[in-house]
This record gives sequence, structure tokens and C-alpha cells, in this order.
Amino acid sequence: MTDTPNVLWIMADQLRFDYLSCYGHPHLHTPHIDALAKRGVQFDHAYVQSPVCGPSRMSAYTGRYVRSHGSTWNGMPLRIGEPTLGDHLREAGARAVLVGKTHMIADKEGMAWLGIDPESEIGVHRSECGFEPFERDDGLHPDSARQNWSAYDDYLLAHGYDSDNPWEDFANSGVDETGELLSAWLLKNSRLPANVPEEHSETAYMTDRAMEFMEDAMQDGRPWMCHLSYIKPHWPYIVPAPYHDMYNETHIVDPIRSDAERKTDHPLMGAYLDARVCRSFSRDHVREHVIPAYMGLIKQLDDNLGRLFAWMDEKGLSENTIIAFTSDHGDYMGDHWMGDKDFYHDMAVKVPLIIADPRPAADATRGTVSDALVEMIDLAPTIMNALGCTPKPHIIEGRDLTPILHDRAGFSRQYVISEHDYHWSEMAASLGVSQEDAHTTMIFDGRWKYIICEGFAPVLFDLQNDPNELNDLGRSDGPEHVEARARMDAALLRWATRHHTRVTATPSVLARQKTAAKDGILIGFWDEEEYLSATGQAFGDLAPSGKR
Amino acid sequence: MTDTPNVLWIMADQLRFDYLSCYGHPHLHTPHIDALAKRGVQFDHAYVQSPVCGPSRMSAYTGRYVRSHGSTWNGMPLRIGEPTLGDHLREAGARAVLVGKTHMIADKEGMAWLGIDPESEIGVHRSECGFEPFERDDGLHPDSARQNWSAYDDYLLAHGYDSDNPWEDFANSGVDETGELLSAWLLKNSRLPANVPEEHSETAYMTDRAMEFMEDAMQDGRPWMCHLSYIKPHWPYIVPAPYHDMYNETHIVDPIRSDAERKTDHPLMGAYLDARVCRSFSRDHVREHVIPAYMGLIKQLDDNLGRLFAWMDEKGLSENTIIAFTSDHGDYMGDHWMGDKDFYHDMAVKVPLIIADPRPAADATRGTVSDALVEMIDLAPTIMNALGCTPKPHIIEGRDLTPILHDRAGFSRQYVISEHDYHWSEMAASLGVSQEDAHTTMIFDGRWKYIICEGFAPVLFDLQNDPNELNDLGRSDGPEHVEARARMDAALLRWATRHHTRVTATPSVLARQKTAAKDGILIGFWDEEEYLSATGQAFGDLAPSGKR
Repeated sequence: MTDTPNVLWIMADQLRFDYLSCYGHPHLHTPHIDALAKRGVQFDHAYVQSPVCGPSRMSAYTGRYVRSHGSTWNGMPLRIGEPTLGDHLREAGARAVLVGKTHMIADKEGMAWLGIDPESEIGVHRSECGFEPFERDDGLHPDSARQNWSAYDDYLLAHGYDSDNPWEDFANSGVDETGELLSAWLLKNSRLPANVPEEHSETAYMTDRAMEFMEDAMQDGRPWMCHLSYIKPHWPYIVPAPYHDMYNETHIVDPIRSDAERKTDHPLMGAYLDARVCRSFSRDHVREHVIPAYMGLIKQLDDNLGRLFAWMDEKGLSENTIIAFTSDHGDYMGDHWMGDKDFYHDMAVKVPLIIADPRPAADATRGTVSDALVEMIDLAPTIMNALGCTPKPHIIEGRDLTPILHDRAGFSRQYVISEHDYHWSEMAASLGVSQEDAHTTMIFDGRWKYIICEGFAPVLFDLQNDPNELNDLGRSDGPEHVEARARMDAALLRWATRHHTRVTATPSVLARQKTAAKDGILIGFWDEEEYLSATGQAFGDLAPSGKR
Repeated sequence: MTDTPNVLWIMADQLRFDYLSCYGHPHLHTPHIDALAKRGVQFDHAYVQSPVCGPSRMSAYTGRYVRSHGSTWNGMPLRIGEPTLGDHLREAGARAVLVGKTHMIADKEGMAWLGIDPESEIGVHRSECGFEPFERDDGLHPDSARQNWSAYDDYLLAHGYDSDNPWEDFANSGVDETGELLSAWLLKNSRLPANVPEEHSETAYMTDRAMEFMEDAMQDGRPWMCHLSYIKPHWPYIVPAPYHDMYNETHIVDPIRSDAERKTDHPLMGAYLDARVCRSFSRDHVREHVIPAYMGLIKQLDDNLGRLFAWMDEKGLSENTIIAFTSDHGDYMGDHWMGDKDFYHDMAVKVPLIIADPRPAADATRGTVSDALVEMIDLAPTIMNALGCTPKPHIIEGRDLTPILHDRAGFSRQYVISEHDYHWSEMAASLGVSQEDAHTTMIFDGRWKYIICEGFAPVLFDLQNDPNELNDLGRSDGPEHVEARARMDAALLRWATRHHTRVTATPSVLARQKTAAKDGILIGFWDEEEYLSATGQAFGDLAPSGKR
């Protein structure tokens, strides 16, 4: 085993932290993910930097907060000139390879402005979030501007699934007992089996592709980080047999919600509850159809990961591959009378995070659970460390988790941050909030979760006394609550006024500035004598040195 | 006169707002700048976004706050991919031409990373702050990493001023009665005449170059914005005859300072006062040597502007050219026991700003004084408006001043912001402040000037009761002061958590997102009926439309 391990970074999409048995789900058993946790560290307080796919992923792939990279919502291109994890790894001689979804939108206008050909190697990296694309696939949205024919569509065609839109007609549709094809974009069809056998489903396909990449990489020899990014259990909620009927109403945990929440007088929270997806998931029969399918998708994912891990053991890859497993955000599933994600309750903004490091230095922490407050942006510097990149504090805002993995001091964080831009939403439309003002920011210190909502009162939860986040203290005049809000405001101000965009402050630039400041600024000297006593050199000696 | 005027944007370097007769200096008469004010609007509350050359100028040239463009101090390259005023003007078919100083440092590492040839047209624009360089000249620092041989050096050689460093030996040095050459980098030599005749001095030379550009531009025909950027009255403080002895001790206004200030117990303020340049300018004999030279440099600048304006009248350029005159920051000159700039008292962070718009719409405001709170970043959108650029609210953070110039409603600002990164400084070194924490932020609402200093107590001045900013209320427990600090903290938090980096949120991107949000998000529909009632179209009609 070499000193430089490889890294397999597995990301599920829209996977709630509490829908895994190692995170406590009573009915959904995920033995393979649980086994990974036993080989590594399970993080119980891992938070994403935005509770929605695009910005959360852009933060994960840059190691930077949303306010720093600027890609604030799905479809907001990652600006040209924003450095990514892939760029840092390539610089260190490692490959950063994509197998699956990134949700990245290329900054075409920016590339044209700077004369970068999107087809060039540089252009492709800039279009793929800095990754070398082995397979790029963001899933099929039948009504989306991002609609693309994918390699998976070709795969389905090649295996005899003939259609002008195979993904939609096979992976995203179900068949009822009469043989009728029914779209899983309608929730009533969630319990049907997907119109594709499991071995040809999206999850199985992408697992196979990851193995194909690792086969190639073993020939190639360079160290690598592979981002295996599954589209599931993200909607449309439908899963192939036998997973479609493994779970039923009896396996559904009760919703986390209170009648008081429904009567909120907070305008923004009220607008959320009025949004279609929230009204829909507030209905029990919707939960009863969707949750079993969601659980089936996760069970299928776990089985495929079991297949992948066994294959890696067999190939001898496990002993030299750090495996990270996480998700880009959760799913409300009707909790708090909400659906999908887009806000900051734990089931939306907190994610599972497991890191199994095969190196001996990590032996002491295998099977342990860490309650450290960590952010998704911490993965990038952790992976950079593993692959021998020099730290880049002027760019990377995440913090290296290696000290936790290796059971030593060196990691600390007092709070986690998450941001959301809702300018596109029903909430902004119904409240008449401008796209400039339609944003919220969350800060959580382990007890107090505080959310500032531009133009509205803040939201505050005390997770020590209200772990289910049912009681909004954002306007409470209880002294402890007033004090907590003031402390969180101060912490947010410190965070928000920190350097976030000083990406050119490289070591060489900073060194040059120190030199210029030390020798360079001649102002303030009265005469030669003062100059000599201050600098230790004669003025006459220095002046010519600056000449050409 | 066409509808599209040209713009001449004149910037002096380190010019205090109060060292012009139109801004009230009792002894320094600047009739030509005063006359410009009579033709336009004089802004009495114009603030720069950082009280130091580089970041202030990067804000001016991008229309964005320092925290947004990230070039936080001199020598910090402007990141590749940061859009500039020049880019926006070119897009609208106008030229953005540089004649003089920008203090821009190119992001060479960024250009190499994105495969941009610094010699290419795109590379040159990126290296020159987005300008088309007619002449680039940042002045000569004999001991600086930025040392460059300049066109002005060639000019001096061509006129018989022979030296291996002509600028230093002629423009930056003086001669005493014995004929000895003495460097103006030593303050004791400030009163000597520069070793160059006025007509060949930096200020005269750059004025001539501006005329040469305008001659060219008249042939070229395209609308233009010319940034005429003088290096003076920036140090080294020395001026050619006859300006070197136009002023003496009797013309020096008393320093603005109190003994109490010198006894400050604020660690950061104390460190400022201990810095060499502040100790030096606290000495009366230093002020008595430097200020007359500084006044002479400004008088010389005014005379050259008189020459320029007369020439423009003669060429018929005045009637179609908007002229803006300003500075990148001020100079303490011993006020508050400080020297140079780098903090937020008015003489450092407030600048002169005069805009003379020849268009009839501006007739009503000629000769008026505006007390609106304006920022240097407001010039970029004002110039964009004049030259017919579409507004770019996703990039430009400044606000168009045209409504003020044209005497109509539409401009408003409740506070101005300025930022400073002092990681390079004696203050950071003596206080042991890390480069990450060495920053301050100022917010001023017209009465309260509030400065947060990471790691230290804030500084607060009440300019209504203390117009000279002598009394720091940053730790006062007077109820009004506590309340003012809380209000300013809240305003700063709103400002700091606003969108600053969402530069890819172009109109087309936002439109696409609205469409995707409206038609695109199918989740949450139970069945066809619900879909029909919500969208007005049958589910079956839509689904195929998304197919290829």
C-alpha cells in the first residue's frame, strides 16, 4: 500500500441522514453502508452549505461557501475562474474523475468572454465542475431546459429498451397490472415497479460504471479521486422490483410536525407551507405512496454499494482507497408540513457523512461516531490532504477532517453555515420578494439554529430543548432567546465580513507583499540617518538596487 | 452633438477632498477644477471602497465592493474572471481606454490556469483592468517588485534626460543650491524643486498623452471613455519649479488632532500611531516640508487640467464629453497623528468627486453641490448609462448617479461602505494579527461612522456632534451610542449577507430559472387531475414536450 491512497467519494442525492440503519432508522436496514461506518468514522452533525442540489454541490466541489462561489441556485452557472477540487488535485498529479451527477451548469458566457473553447481540455474541465468526466449524468427532467440525451439512454437502447426517451419510459415510469405505462412524475404511481429490471436501473448502471473506471485507473497508475454520484433516491420516486414492495405503511415513521407549525404567522414560513410541494407532502396518502418507494430506492442503493465494496475487496482496491459516503441534502417527506427540501430543518440540511480511511493512522477511530460540527466543504480539503495537495487557505474555506479521522487534535468549528436563494420560487412570487432579497442564511452552533430571512423576522430553534425543531423562537422575548439571537447575529457578521473572495492571495503573492511592505515603502523617512537606523542599511545602498 | 457622449474620467492619486478651493481650502486656489464644478455637480459625501490605492481602484474599475472582487490590497491580483467596466463598455461598442495609472496586478497564475495568453488581446485586457491601454504607468518605486521601465522613462531619455533610471533621477529627485541630486523619497528634500522642468514632468506628460489619445479618438469615431489617471499628488512629494516654492508654512492649515487621540487605549489605533509613517507625519517639521510640496503638486495638476480643458474647448470636445474628476483616497498629512492613508477618517476615505455632464438634461444641476452619500463604485454604472450599456445588477454593485446629475428621483443610499486589509502592515506585525483576521470594515450613514475591527473593539464617530472625528465612541455605554452600534451592526450584516458574487445571474439565466420553476418542477402532483387544475394543461400534453 502506497502513501498516497485513492479516494472514492460516493454521493447520494436527496438522501435524508435518518433513512439509514446506522443513523437509526427502525425499519430500513442498510447493512453495507452500516459496515462502511464500522470501517470508518460516522459524522452525526454534518451540514450542507445549501439545502438544494446545485449550490450544495458547487460548495462541495469548490470547498467554498455559496456566498463565495456565487452559484446560488440550480441552473446558476459556476462562474468562470472559480477554482475547484479537481483543479487542485490535477495540480498535485492526481486525477479527479466524475462518474454521475454534478448539477453543474457551465458559464458559457464567461467562457466566450475569456476566449475559452468549451471543447478544449480546459473548457471541458470548466464545464464539468473541474472534473475529468468519465460519465456525466444529471438525470432526466422531461420538462427541463437541461434535458440531455445521456449515455444511460444509449445503454438502455443497446439493451433493447427502445424509445425516443428511454430513461423516461423505463427508469422513470411504472407499469400497472394491466401493463399500462404510468409516469412516476405523478406521485400516485410511486408504488408501481419501475419499467426496468433492477440490473439495468440507474443505480445499478452507475455502480457498474464506477467499476469500469476503477478497472481503467488500475492500468493508468496515477492516484485518483472518483466522485461516484448517484441520482437516487432523488425524485421521481420509483424503484424497480423487488424493491418497489419491500416497504409499506407499517414501515413509515410518524411525521415530525405540530399543529402549531401549521398556524405560523411568519410570512416566509407560511409561504413555504402554501407551496404546492408542501401541501402535497402534508397529505398522508402522499407519504404512504412516496415513502415506501423512497425507502426501496435507498435499500437498492445499499445493495449496489455492497456489490461495489465486495468487488473492490476482490480487486484489492479497498486497502488503498479512502471511501466517503454522503448526500447533497435531505428530503422533508411531509415533516413540518413540508416536501422536497429548500429549508433548514435537520431532515433537509443535515446529511449522512461516513469516511472510511484504510490507513493505519485511522485504526483508532474505526467504528466511532463523531459529533463534531462539520460542513460539506470540509471534504475537499480532506481529500486534498489525502492526495498530497498543498493547502490553499486563500481559496478553500472548508477545514481538513483528517485530524478527526486520525484521532488527533487540529479540527475545530464553532458553527456551521448554510444559505438559500429562493428568488425562483412560489414563496418569492406569493410574497413579492425581489430576486435580490430572496435569500436566507442559517447558522447552527450545535444547540441554537438561527436563520436570518432578508425582509422578515429571523427563525430560531433550540435543539437542546426542542430537538424536533417545532418551536420557532425567532421573535421570543425570553432573555435567553434574545441573547442567543444577538450572539448568532455577531457570529454571522464575523463570518460574512471574513475574506471569501481573496482567491489570488497565493503564498507567492503574500510573500511579495510582505517584502514590498518591509523594504518597499520608503515613505515616512526624514533623512539618511533615520533610514539607516530603521532599516539597517544606508539609503544610498538601497536606492540604486531598485534601478533597472 | 450625438446622444452618446464620450467620458473623460480623471483620477488624481492620494488627493484629499479638502485640498481644493471648491472644497474649501483657504490658501490653495484651484480655479480650473472649481470651474469644472461650476459646469457640473460637486459631491460633498463621496467615499472610496478602500482607503488605499489598489483595492480602491479595483472597486472603481469593477463597480464592486472589495469583498466582492477580492483584490484586497496593493499587489493582490484582480482574479481572472472578474468583469470590469471596460468589458461592459466594449460589449456596448464603446472604447475604454487607459491613460495613466491603475495599480492593477494581473492574475498570471489564473491566466495560465485558464490557458489565456497574456499577450493576446483578451490577455492584455485582463492584465490592464479591462482597459485598452493607450498608456499604462503606475509610477516608479525604486525598491518595488513592481518596478517597470515606462514610456515616461523613454520620453525623458528622448528629451535628453540621460540616466539608467530617469524617472527616479529627474522626476523623483531634487537639486539643492550646490547642484547635488537629492532623492524625494527622503522627506527632508520635499521642498526642493524637482530635477525636471514642469513641461516634462509626470503631470504635464500624462496631460499631453490624454490629448494625443483624444486626437486619435476623433479620427476613430467610436464613442469612448478615457481614464486619465495621474500619479500625483501621491508621494514621493516633490514638484518642479515654480510650484516648489509657491507655498510655505503660512499656507499650512492646522492639523486636526487632539492629545486624547494620542492616548488611545484601542490596540489597533495605538498600533497605527506607532507605525513609522504616522510617527513621522506627527512631527511639525515633516508637515512643514511635505505639505507645501503636496499643495504645489495639486496646483500644478489644476494648471494642467486648465490647459487640457481649454484644448478640449478648442477642439469642440467639451460639448460632447462628460468629465468626472476624483481621487482614489486622501492623505492624513499628520491629522489624527497619522500619515499616508489606510484608515477611515474623512481626509483618508472621503474624496473629491465632480461630474460635469454637458447634456441638456443636466442643465438644472450645473454648479450645484450634492450631499448625497455616494460611493466610488457608483461611477461605473453612471458611465455605463452614459455610453448605452444595459444595466448589470448581477455584477455591478454601484448605483447610477445619472438621476442626481439630471435632477430627478431615482438615486438613494442609506450608507457607504469601505474595507481595509492590513495583513501586510506594521500594525498586523506588532499586534500579531493573522493575515486572515487583519481586516476592518467601515459603514457611514451620514452621521455615524462605525468601524468593525476583527478581534478588537469597534470604533465609532458621531460626525454630527464631532465633525472632526476626535472622539471614539466605540466602547461608550451611552444609550444613543449603544443603539447606534446595534443599528450599524444590523446594517452591516444585511450588506455582508447580500448577493455579491452571483455574477452569472444574467437576465437569460434568471429567465431560464423562472421557466424551469414554473413548468419544470413536476414534483408534488398527485395525479393528472391535480396537474391539470394547477397548470391548465393536461399532463399527457406536457410530458412528451420534454422528450427529445
